[in-house]
Amino acid sequence: MTYCVGLKLDRGLVFAADTRTNAGVDNIATFKKLHVWEKPGERVFTLLTAGNLAITQSVVSILSEQIASPTLNKTNLMSVDTMFQAARLVGQAVRDVRALDGDALAASAESFFVTFIFGGQIKGEEPRLFQIYSAGNFIEATDDTMFFQIGEHKYGKPILDRVTRRDMRLGAAAKMALLSFDSTLRSNLSVGMPIDLMLYNTDSFTAHRQKRIDREDPYFQTLSSEWSNALRKAFTEIPEFEI
Amino acid sequence: MTYCVGLKLDRGLVFAADTRTNAGVDNIATFKKLHVWEKPGERVFTLLTAGNLAITQSVVSILSEQIASPTLNKTNLMSVDTMFQAARLVGQAVRDVRALDGDALAASAESFFVTFIFGGQIKGEEPRLFQIYSAGNFIEATDDTMFFQIGEHKYGKPILDRVTRRDMRLGAAAKMALLSFDSTLRSNLSVGMPIDLMLYNTDSFTAHRQKRIDREDPYFQTLSSEWSNALRKAFTEIPEFEI
Repeated sequence: MTYCVGLKLDRGLVFAADTRTNAGVDNIATFKKLHVWEKPGERVFTLLTAGNLAITQSVVSILSEQIASPTLNKTNLMSVDTMFQAARLVGQAVRDVRALDGDALAASAESFFVTFIFGGQIKGEEPRLFQIYSAGNFIEATDDTMFFQIGEHKYGKPILDRVTRRDMRLGAAAKMALLSFDSTLRSNLSVGMPIDLMLYNTDSFTAHRQKRIDREDPYFQTLSSEWSNALRKAFTEIPEFEI
Repeated sequence: MTYCVGLKLDRGLVFAADTRTNAGVDNIATFKKLHVWEKPGERVFTLLTAGNLAITQSVVSILSEQIASPTLNKTNLMSVDTMFQAARLVGQAVRDVRALDGDALAASAESFFVTFIFGGQIKGEEPRLFQIYSAGNFIEATDDTMFFQIGEHKYGKPILDRVTRRDMRLGAAAKMALLSFDSTLRSNLSVGMPIDLMLYNTDSFTAHRQKRIDREDPYFQTLSSEWSNALRKAFTEIPEFEI
């Protein structure tokens, strides 16, 4: 399993992804699921991945190879003019992997299942955020729906529903995302630390605000314990139910 | 879908169940999923049901008919000596329904899927709480795992994980259960009000603490808004994340 969340806010984008992969509970490993491409001063892309790791890694490799060989691939993440075209490229990479591996996966009775959160900004546009499906098609975040989640989304959704505000600071949104992870980590063993975080400030065109949060991270430990204490305190302050 | 929760605490048992059933999003209805049998002063049983409504209603009818015809059914909920034997009776009722309807369901490609939370107290024993599966077998709550959830359990689990304490008052546990429902109702349309609640005080041998909470219930409305406010306040008091 996996848990990833991406938010589109007035001040920019926030991305968070866990790093656990598993083939059964007795076979777990750590893989990065947050991938970044940038051309400083001009464009920044972030891709969060969930689903079959062989497929998602292939998608990332195809997108990177296109950038590395621009003469062979005139259309790549560094050449497109809009985020919509960039999202189409990701979708096309998913379809390319299906063309390569789909039949063999089907022959092994493996499903072709992946989902992505893809966001970023290209100069001349606002930041944009997409959720991309196994079929390579996608939806875009709007003012009504400011975040996407992929993987194990349920445990961490109540906090996002209650706290997300368009005008919140990115540091506050990152705090909220980490609380959402905290709830998920407590309940689903197949979601695991460390967590990769990426904050993107609108019009900054740089990907330097990235951090990996591991189990010993003092901020995360404080966050987790203070939140539990605050919840218990808030809980006791509400009158009890009486029948 | 459905959401039900049952807790076993030092002071007694708490049960809560939603009432929505659905066959697709365009066909919803209200059915009680919290069922009570009692012999005041001697024994009280509560059964929460999830899964195929035709099956769960049949199980409830079988258990009630056994009680109504004690000469035909020497072993019934009113005659057994322990909660373990009572849970076996519920499990046997599930197996009886499978024997009656299982083949016909299979012929219609319908799965035989149900789960139950079953708890209560028989004089001479402590209160006990069970989760009963489609196969009719079951597990029992212990001091390590004090609650069971059936149906859409994920959205409402974080609050239970953080707040449940063995020594909490039943009114506090009911408040917690309602908050767990509030998170679930916000996220899953197939879980719906009203909510049926039942509090059972250890050694009371009475089922009088029951209440149905509907959408207009002032306590629930206050609970929901105060909790949202308290969460937002607690959230702002924790330092922001900085990269």
